[in-house]
Amino acid sequence: MTAPSSPTPAVPTELTSVAAKIEVRLEEFLAEESARWHDVDPRLGEAIDLLAGVLTGGGKRLRAAFCYWGWRTTASAGADDAAALDAGAAFELLQAFALIHDDIMDDSAVRRNRPTIHTAQAARLASEGWHGEGRRYGEGVAILVGDLAHAYADGLLSSTNAATRRLWDDLRIELNLGQYLDLRSAASGDLDSATAEQVSMYKSALYTIVRPLQLGACLATGDDTPAELLRGLDSYGRPLGRAFQLRDDLLGVIGDAERLGKPVGEDLREGKPTELLAVAHERADDEQREVLATVGRRDLSAEDVDDIVAVMTKTGAMAEIERRIADLVAQARQTIVALDLDEATEAALDALADYVSTRNS
Amino acid sequence: MTAPSSPTPAVPTELTSVAAKIEVRLEEFLAEESARWHDVDPRLGEAIDLLAGVLTGGGKRLRAAFCYWGWRTTASAGADDAAALDAGAAFELLQAFALIHDDIMDDSAVRRNRPTIHTAQAARLASEGWHGEGRRYGEGVAILVGDLAHAYADGLLSSTNAATRRLWDDLRIELNLGQYLDLRSAASGDLDSATAEQVSMYKSALYTIVRPLQLGACLATGDDTPAELLRGLDSYGRPLGRAFQLRDDLLGVIGDAERLGKPVGEDLREGKPTELLAVAHERADDEQREVLATVGRRDLSAEDVDDIVAVMTKTGAMAEIERRIADLVAQARQTIVALDLDEATEAALDALADYVSTRNS
Repeated sequence: MTAPSSPTPAVPTELTSVAAKIEVRLEEFLAEESARWHDVDPRLGEAIDLLAGVLTGGGKRLRAAFCYWGWRTTASAGADDAAALDAGAAFELLQAFALIHDDIMDDSAVRRNRPTIHTAQAARLASEGWHGEGRRYGEGVAILVGDLAHAYADGLLSSTNAATRRLWDDLRIELNLGQYLDLRSAASGDLDSATAEQVSMYKSALYTIVRPLQLGACLATGDDTPAELLRGLDSYGRPLGRAFQLRDDLLGVIGDAERLGKPVGEDLREGKPTELLAVAHERADDEQREVLATVGRRDLSAEDVDDIVAVMTKTGAMAEIERRIADLVAQARQTIVALDLDEATEAALDALADYVSTRNS
Repeated sequence: MTAPSSPTPAVPTELTSVAAKIEVRLEEFLAEESARWHDVDPRLGEAIDLLAGVLTGGGKRLRAAFCYWGWRTTASAGADDAAALDAGAAFELLQAFALIHDDIMDDSAVRRNRPTIHTAQAARLASEGWHGEGRRYGEGVAILVGDLAHAYADGLLSSTNAATRRLWDDLRIELNLGQYLDLRSAASGDLDSATAEQVSMYKSALYTIVRPLQLGACLATGDDTPAELLRGLDSYGRPLGRAFQLRDDLLGVIGDAERLGKPVGEDLREGKPTELLAVAHERADDEQREVLATVGRRDLSAEDVDDIVAVMTKTGAMAEIERRIADLVAQARQTIVALDLDEATEAALDALADYVSTRNS
């Protein structure tokens, strides 16, 4: 099912300009590593190229952009942005790590309109006539390529200051624990609102927005970064991060598969705890509850998904989530003025808030 | 098949004394993290406890010991060893990460006489009556707990100096690429000596011995660590690391399962490239080659394993590997004097060389 009338919102230049620089940095970094390891043994270079395939296959570079504009809250416009770009590239490598491992856990076959690593490598085993089980081999390679991304991400932040490192260490623990809660809740059927909000706080608010902003802010000023600024970025990022996740949840059931680069309805098949599902549950009558009880079945057809979406619409859950998004974004925006930023940075946070909450991919 | 007459070699105090301190540091660290996350949500604390279960279940703490004695090559006997113990704990967390992920890739059910995380968590899904596929859930949890160990390992080295960080960054890339080559070679059947030696260099020589020693040496002296010392530690560690791996290969086919904490013959079932197998191949006649061709079959029985071991014995491959171990250890030992160390550190490197090459678990 595709949203009938969602015009593509313009991607703000505050995002595209950072994304362009990050592409360059990532390509340069990966080309160098690939050449270095191909020289040692082409089989080792192959592992780097698998990672490069994931990283250069597009992506919004949202975390890099929040990191960059976080940096601009403490660095002047003309300052050398090399450290901000390295940190941004680190976030994109960390995101590649998270996605590669996530795709194994969810058994997602497609990401950014291309086969996921574990899927492609399982197929490779068969086509090369190699020994063993394709699924195990594919997942093994994907685990290692994800681990490689994690180590490289970390290496890009090796020479930063102590305050930045502390944030980096914390955000990785939060990310992994958020993932664990997500996985466990989908299995155990903890689909209440509180669990959905908690997962969303770790995976979206903190990991995607608050920590990139705060880490960016600390790059130039380390332990001297004003506590008030860090708190202010938190006040902006938490509601916005929740709005980001709510938009994600909506796109996951009524988005455009082509634009998203992956099938819709997967969250429902995996039984992911989302606020959307929790609200629908709370408002459903007995008959509607029976339809919602099919969530978590791996074999849901497109029609089954449509039935669930119909319940989400009729119960008013869809509209309620749209209302929540609007409220949360308004809340985030109100905090920007108090941060006392230069005009360009203020405009960037405003444009990013708008984009994050209205995007259709 | 069990080695008929292998008396348990004494574990040197240079290893046990470090191991005891590392246990304390790890337990303290994990208890603190567990309490912190249990306070937030017991479901999150659970993930930390799964990691603690792996880390406190024993282990030789070899990498921590090499790191500690590496530190003693540049720090005096009475110096505060907090940084060396943190680095040692980081190595043990990194080793937990590597083992947890490795056990998924190899589908190993048992480690240190206990069910592996992915095995235990697959069983949990069934016993709790949760939704989804047990295998996928178990592996998902194990991936995340491994990732958590990786992030924690890294966090323990956050405040170290630049030279130490560079080594830490490099060794993680080497470890992951070594694992990739291992996995790929087992699948593709690249079982030649050169590949086996390359895997052994990354996974054993560098990761287990050379890098822990060098990193330890840099903890106190950073970029001022003499290049000659770092080269000397390399000259000691490379042959010793290869000997360590060769001993591992022998134990993997004729060790005592109880003492090893895992079944024997797994390397043969997985078709792991080892020097032992490569030498047997080189020396086998046609009939013996047919027996060796069964390596890589997941369903090898204990009798099949015995047949392969018989070929390894009759071709003289076993004896050749023992000869290589003796030569390599002699080579490693010869380099110690040139390092010009204090008496205790010199004795430690000597004792560790002996233990690593003669151990039976």
